[in-house]
Parts: sequence; C-alpha cells; structure tokens
Amino acid sequence: MNLPFNQKLETACREKINSLCIGLDIDPDKFPKGRDTSLQGMETFGKEVIDGTIDFCPVYKPNFAFFERFGSKGYALLERLVDHVSGRAIVIADAKRGDIRNTSLKYAQSILDTMGCDAITISPYMGRDAIEPFIENPSKGVFILAVTSNPRAAEIQNHKNNSGHLYEKVIQMAVELNINKNIGLVVGATKTNQMAKVRELSPGLPWLMPGIGTQGGNLESALEISHQNGMGIINISRGILYAGDGSIEDIIKAAKDYKEKIGDIIWNPV
Amino acid sequence: MNLPFNQKLETACREKINSLCIGLDIDPDKFPKGRDTSLQGMETFGKEVIDGTIDFCPVYKPNFAFFERFGSKGYALLERLVDHVSGRAIVIADAKRGDIRNTSLKYAQSILDTMGCDAITISPYMGRDAIEPFIENPSKGVFILAVTSNPRAAEIQNHKNNSGHLYEKVIQMAVELNINKNIGLVVGATKTNQMAKVRELSPGLPWLMPGIGTQGGNLESALEISHQNGMGIINISRGILYAGDGSIEDIIKAAKDYKEKIGDIIWNPV
Repeated sequence: MNLPFNQKLETACREKINSLCIGLDIDPDKFPKGRDTSLQGMETFGKEVIDGTIDFCPVYKPNFAFFERFGSKGYALLERLVDHVSGRAIVIADAKRGDIRNTSLKYAQSILDTMGCDAITISPYMGRDAIEPFIENPSKGVFILAVTSNPRAAEIQNHKNNSGHLYEKVIQMAVELNINKNIGLVVGATKTNQMAKVRELSPGLPWLMPGIGTQGGNLESALEISHQNGMGIINISRGILYAGDGSIEDIIKAAKDYKEKIGDIIWNPV
Repeated sequence: MNLPFNQKLETACREKINSLCIGLDIDPDKFPKGRDTSLQGMETFGKEVIDGTIDFCPVYKPNFAFFERFGSKGYALLERLVDHVSGRAIVIADAKRGDIRNTSLKYAQSILDTMGCDAITISPYMGRDAIEPFIENPSKGVFILAVTSNPRAAEIQNHKNNSGHLYEKVIQMAVELNINKNIGLVVGATKTNQMAKVRELSPGLPWLMPGIGTQGGNLESALEISHQNGMGIINISRGILYAGDGSIEDIIKAAKDYKEKIGDIIWNPV
C-alpha cells in the first residue's frame, strides 16, 4: 500500500537523518568558467549534483522556470532529471500552479503523473477548488504558498481583518483539506516573526522552507519553530549549487555542511 | 516603435471589430469520433482552428495545462501553435505564473521571449515583486488574477477588512504597477455582482474574462460593465472548440456567432 505523501516525506528524511532539500535552480549563466553551458552541460551538471548528494539528501526541488526558459528542450531536460532521481529521493515540483478545477486536473496529470514528481507547490489565490485536483491521490502531495520569503509578500498575505491575516485563512483552508495527509505549506525562512503563529495553526503539517542563504533567512529559528509540531524541509538552491568555486566537490561539501548544521539543530543535538 | 501591450491589444480588437479570445484548451479526450487524437492530430486541429478564425479573431489564449499533460512533446506542440499564430493575433499565455523576483525573471524569459507570447496570466498571491519582472518590457503584458470565475474563488479573494476585499487590494496594486500601460486583470464573467466595483477601481485596464459558456457567465453584463471604462476580452474555450458536432465548420460557425453577439452589444449596437 502506498503511504500518504506526508508520511513518505517524513520516512525519507528519517532514513537519511536529514531534512535538506536541494533546489535545482540550474543556471548556466552562473557556471564557473570552463563548464559546458549547453543543455547537455546542464544535464551533466544536474546529474552530478544529484548523484553526489543523493546518499544523504532526501528531497530535491526543481524550479520549473530555470528549465522552461529553454523551451521544450529545457522541459525535456527537466523530465530527464526527475527520472534520474527516480525513487531515490522525494521530488517537489516548484511550479506554483493552480487554476479552475478542469485545468488543475490537467496540471496534476502533467506534473504528478506524466512527469512523475511526488509533490508540487500551489498558489492558493483561486481557493480550494483549484487545489483539490492535486490532492486526490494520497501518495502525491502539495505545498500551498502560505507565507513566502520575498520582500513584498506581506502586501497580499498580511491582508488583515478581525478573523486574522489572509495567510491564516490560507492555513485554515490547508488544514481542512488535509484529509488524505498529503498537504504541506510553503513558509519562507525569512519570516521569523510569523513562524510561531503559522506553526500554531498548522499542527503536523510539513513546511517547505525557502529563503535560507541568498535571501537571508535564519536556519536555527526555521528548524526550531517548524519542528515544534511537524517538520521543516530546508530548501537551499543557490547556496549549494554555486558554493565555493562552483566545482562539484565544493557543491557536495556545501550540501554536507548543511546536513551537519541541520543535524546539530534537529536530528542529533548535543 | 513598439506600442505598449494594452494599446496593441486594443488595436488588434479594433482592426477585427471583435473582442473575442479563443481559449486553446485542446483536449483530444473530447474530440469527435474519427479525429486523430495523437499529438499530430492535436496540432492539425489547433492549426485548423487558428487558420479558420484568425481573420476575425484578435486574441488566442493557449491553456498550458492542456499541453503540459503530454510532457515535453506537448510543450513543443504548444510552441509550434504559438509560432503558427505569429503576428496575426495577440497570444495570451494562460500559465498563471508568479514567484520570487529571481524566478519570475526566468518565467518572463520562458514565456514572453523564448516562446514569444504577447502576454501572460499571473497570480498575485506573492505580491508585486513577483509581477514586476513580467512588465519591464512595455510591449509585453500581464493579466493579474483579480476575481476569478471558479465557485470557491471568494474564499480567498473576498477576504475583507475595513479597507475592502482582498481583490480590491490586488486591483489597487495592479493600477499602481501599470506605469508601462501593459497590465490587465482577469475578471470572471460569472462574478456579475463584483464587476461594477472592479470597473470603478480599474479605469482603462483591459479585462480578460473567462467563465462564459460552460461556467455560466453572462455575455451582456460582462461586455457592458467592462466597456464602461476600458475593454473586456471575452474568452471562450469549450463553447467554441467543442461546439455542434465538433467539426471545424461548426467550430468556425460558433466563433463567428460569438463575434456577432459581441458586435451587437459593443462594436455595432443597433
């Protein structure tokens, strides 16, 4: 029997004693001098990053924009990288979809079936009927945008009335929809002030946490607050892919360093 | 010199005396018996629909989900259909993107440059820095989700405080961002009660209006309210693509019927 997605995610993290997600924002414009910047070069690089880290990294998150910018050939490359992970880790499609039911059904088919990702990020602006088609299969999951890491997120997400902020409403909707135990939230690690409130409202829901590294979020508070009642998956993209001199050795070292830091805080604290 | 997108859109509609957008939600599961349901069959069908209507239809809106469901080969088919329109009409990518600045820049590149669409639909949940990368080139446009046509849209969009509903906040943000005259709104034609308010808040902004036909929106009120101060682009997808017996003749006839109905209300009222 297939486990519900949230349980699969937790199992994957426990097995590797790690809650790191490597964000596959592969950008040839940032490659060190001498590395092949063609699609073939991107593919080789992506596979080397995956193969060099998969023994200890439980989750990968390809960012669709970085592949779609190369059109259908980039999209095909994305498919091959997802295939390459194939069962060795959880793959979260960072695609931020969401549409009317009839269209969301097709997006769910696209990303969870055709491409075979385990989960997808979803924008909640259209309401719950835009989310439901993605969660009908318990073994596939969604991460609903709740509090995002970017500077102007509060403009919309903190819209406040007597019942609370909009993001609280979104979290309430997520909790209500979590019948199949396959819903998580995107919680930006830069939003330290809101995390305690978000954790109180979403007991047990896993969080996908971008914003550590380039965006300035704090690893300790992200992990400590998220793990009070659930899990926080720490996404690192640029902070790993372009670490040190950009060599595969430096990338693997950066990923291992993050595993250790995460482990010191959560998995095996002194 | 390139015109700003909103002016290009209005010019395209005036030239064809029509404000119809044909939604390219091509679904081989709905093809009439005997039509080739392969990707090749979808391509032939899509090109026949475009060629049979482009003399009088100013706008096409491919729905990305219906192509992505076939993976990179579906994505390549989408690229060929956008190329096929090539300059003969406006193409709005119905992709509902939006992400942190660094990622939105790549999505803008993907859809507006690599694929060459004229405009894209955007979800506002992440705030204005998720939208800005899409509007830097005045000749390319965005349609920001404001009031969507689906049943549970109000759950989030009508979140209300003393300053108004969330959708009003989104519209205010859209108006403030419209420096380059290339922003429009998505306003569901099923949301008659909200349209007058939306029009009051968004003078001059074009609206992309889904929800007529299968979803039950009213054509007259959609056009009359939107055109009080700006334009309403009426999107019809299933109501044209699967009209009558599903033959190309019936499809072209349905598109012409919509042009006439739209013309009677707006372009050449008696």
